[in-house]
Amino acid sequence: MASEQVTERRPLSRMEDLVSLCARRGYIFPSSEIYGGINGFWDYGPLGTELKNNLKAFWWQRVVRERADVEGIDTAIIAHPRTWEASGHVEHFSDPMVDCRKCKRRFRADHTDVPCPEAPAKRQVAECELTDPRSFNLMLTTRVGASEDAASVAYLRAETCQPIFNDFKRIRESARQKIPFGIAQIGKAFRNEINPRNFTFRSREFEQAEMEFFCHPSEREHWFEHWRQQRLHFHECLGFGTDVLRTRAHDADELAHYCKNAVDVEYAFPFGWQEIEGIHDRGDWDLSRHSSFSGKDLSVTDETTKERYTPMVIETSVGVDRTTLALLANSYSEEVLANGESRVVLGLPAHVAPVKAAVLPLSKKLAEPSHALENSLRRQFNVFYDDAGNIGRRYRRQDEAGTPFCITYDFESPDDGRVTVRERDSMAQERIPIDAVVGYLRERIEAPI
Amino acid sequence: MASEQVTERRPLSRMEDLVSLCARRGYIFPSSEIYGGINGFWDYGPLGTELKNNLKAFWWQRVVRERADVEGIDTAIIAHPRTWEASGHVEHFSDPMVDCRKCKRRFRADHTDVPCPEAPAKRQVAECELTDPRSFNLMLTTRVGASEDAASVAYLRAETCQPIFNDFKRIRESARQKIPFGIAQIGKAFRNEINPRNFTFRSREFEQAEMEFFCHPSEREHWFEHWRQQRLHFHECLGFGTDVLRTRAHDADELAHYCKNAVDVEYAFPFGWQEIEGIHDRGDWDLSRHSSFSGKDLSVTDETTKERYTPMVIETSVGVDRTTLALLANSYSEEVLANGESRVVLGLPAHVAPVKAAVLPLSKKLAEPSHALENSLRRQFNVFYDDAGNIGRRYRRQDEAGTPFCITYDFESPDDGRVTVRERDSMAQERIPIDAVVGYLRERIEAPI
Repeated sequence: MASEQVTERRPLSRMEDLVSLCARRGYIFPSSEIYGGINGFWDYGPLGTELKNNLKAFWWQRVVRERADVEGIDTAIIAHPRTWEASGHVEHFSDPMVDCRKCKRRFRADHTDVPCPEAPAKRQVAECELTDPRSFNLMLTTRVGASEDAASVAYLRAETCQPIFNDFKRIRESARQKIPFGIAQIGKAFRNEINPRNFTFRSREFEQAEMEFFCHPSEREHWFEHWRQQRLHFHECLGFGTDVLRTRAHDADELAHYCKNAVDVEYAFPFGWQEIEGIHDRGDWDLSRHSSFSGKDLSVTDETTKERYTPMVIETSVGVDRTTLALLANSYSEEVLANGESRVVLGLPAHVAPVKAAVLPLSKKLAEPSHALENSLRRQFNVFYDDAGNIGRRYRRQDEAGTPFCITYDFESPDDGRVTVRERDSMAQERIPIDAVVGYLRERIEAPI
Repeated sequence: MASEQVTERRPLSRMEDLVSLCARRGYIFPSSEIYGGINGFWDYGPLGTELKNNLKAFWWQRVVRERADVEGIDTAIIAHPRTWEASGHVEHFSDPMVDCRKCKRRFRADHTDVPCPEAPAKRQVAECELTDPRSFNLMLTTRVGASEDAASVAYLRAETCQPIFNDFKRIRESARQKIPFGIAQIGKAFRNEINPRNFTFRSREFEQAEMEFFCHPSEREHWFEHWRQQRLHFHECLGFGTDVLRTRAHDADELAHYCKNAVDVEYAFPFGWQEIEGIHDRGDWDLSRHSSFSGKDLSVTDETTKERYTPMVIETSVGVDRTTLALLANSYSEEVLANGESRVVLGLPAHVAPVKAAVLPLSKKLAEPSHALENSLRRQFNVFYDDAGNIGRRYRRQDEAGTPFCITYDFESPDDGRVTVRERDSMAQERIPIDAVVGYLRERIEAPI
């Protein structure tokens, strides 16, 4: 069909287009929207939840389940507050802030090149009457316990890795692991960002997928390089090409004092190259600090050499929301077709796409056998049924939702036992036997190896 | 083998035995253990995480993916604080507390039948010098925003359902759903319990799997009964028999003022019959309150009759940690064998068991082909490899971990291409072709329908 040929393809250039699609289709939208939202917090709707869950499951599969040397855990968001003293967060996890004596607002001391909210046309914040910088801790605090007076301050975890260090000894012993091995978890973390921005990229509540790999000091370079390659390959499996994906090694003066080596995996968002994952050689900083603060010895003994040592840590830390956002940004395009029509399409890789196939009867009269097909697929795949509107409009809705396959049941289908499968990106159509649909989908939605 | 016959079977009677197994095997243990723990917070280790994740995935599959009329979402833990004013939590979500003037402790006014901590042998708390009851709000609070002075108080969600009501309109419109339909989510919730107890049963941070089903007022009884049956069947699929599972309808005086009907699904823990899920007819309370507090109209119009109405809500609310605990408690037993030995076995249903199969070479000399078998299974199943210790001891370790199948590779295997599969509960052994192992496992780990 000539009308379905693409004559022009425009990738995402303005974030607003993606934000608008995400709200319209229920991918992602502001938390508590009916109350005007709450700055830095987002809710995932049906499509966004499936996309994010598929991404997390893919990470868990690759990093935990397919490896005998990585254990997956799930720790509480609220840990003993000493955890965050040992990690250095209580003392150091802060931004320098300045207040303006005129407009009474607070800004990051290194972000004052913005217009002053009081007189936006006239001057930059830097020209306001600013106080000296003061330190502002980014951890969210709460109080836990029966009595409000005596209640202890506790922190919402600022990263998912610290509870991993807390549990290192328990996991090593109960899982009978030997060095080298890793511990991984996926979960929420919280930071009181001064200025949440760029949609879900910098938010106050976010999800991390982190893995801490414990190794002998002599092997840290080897494992750093191993994980750098593994993690880069992971992002390639998400469909990110070399034009939008790069690694960036930190310069010596960017490294945290305990950090020997760090590489960011960056994606080319419309707002610039930004980190979606960090790979860090954290040395023995964390285990040593937790040993010292807890009084529990977290060193290990080499069974062969009898050497006693504190393992070095190679960390891989994915921003789940950021990578979900990169998937959406990378797959978004507006296309002009030969017939003059246009479409918005989310070309998500099939293995992470929220809905794998839509079942579309050509007419509502075909509802019964179409529902039978839908139900036969539903137990194995996330499928969607739609009989409302003309078939072209229904295809467009699925294009926008990122559904890789549309299965059309038509008036010939009861006779020849075949349906038409239409592929989202090429819009190519193919007629296949109904009993071949499961195999057809299964083959095409498998994750790359 | 006569020695493997069970002569006596003792189910779990003391929670300590389960708590001890869970710590030893890395199922569940106190959060921040190296710092002495933090009361009411627990971490899940490798086996516990897989078990809980399998339970959540099974719920998501049954409640969301297999139903065209339920949408799954994933909202922020921190919502706009007005959410919790509308829900009534700010005003009413509190326990009456009394203080003792002597021992300075605080107790729930309805839980004073415990020994006084100051003089445990002498008197009950009720005989202490108690203050009048005062109300103590159970929500955890935090502050969000740039300035510490002007920062807004926010709450960690006390239940996962309120953000569902916040998002009702957005989801209905973007997913193009019509009444009746449901919205579901799984996630963390927080309550500052005065007295966390019974292992993970009553903790301060916990996970819920909730579904809110919106229907026309004339259909509330129908949908309540539909969901009661569906949810009961779900728990039956987890292997809970009629001896340990029951439903309990709330008496009229137990019902919340907005609640017309409520049934608890209860499990017979060693500490008594306790709720693991609640099924509630919440009426139009939540949508009406959020309409009124947000000023956004959350009513709907029937397309056929043009009637405008606020939908009624049937809620199903699973305690994920509680149900995980019930799975562990229900599957735990100590068995005495004919040869006088004994074993602890977790008879978890195979579809939720953390590890599906262990690959056990009879000798370390068989490591290479055994690893090949392990790797061929690992991409599809969560498997475990163990070549340490005699085969009997390795079986016992897997029994304790709840692994349904052990696959032993022996000195005959390279010649006849067969391995021995040993089933956990019956301890029956069967020799099958290596290339039949995938099919054998797949068939036996499927969830019941």
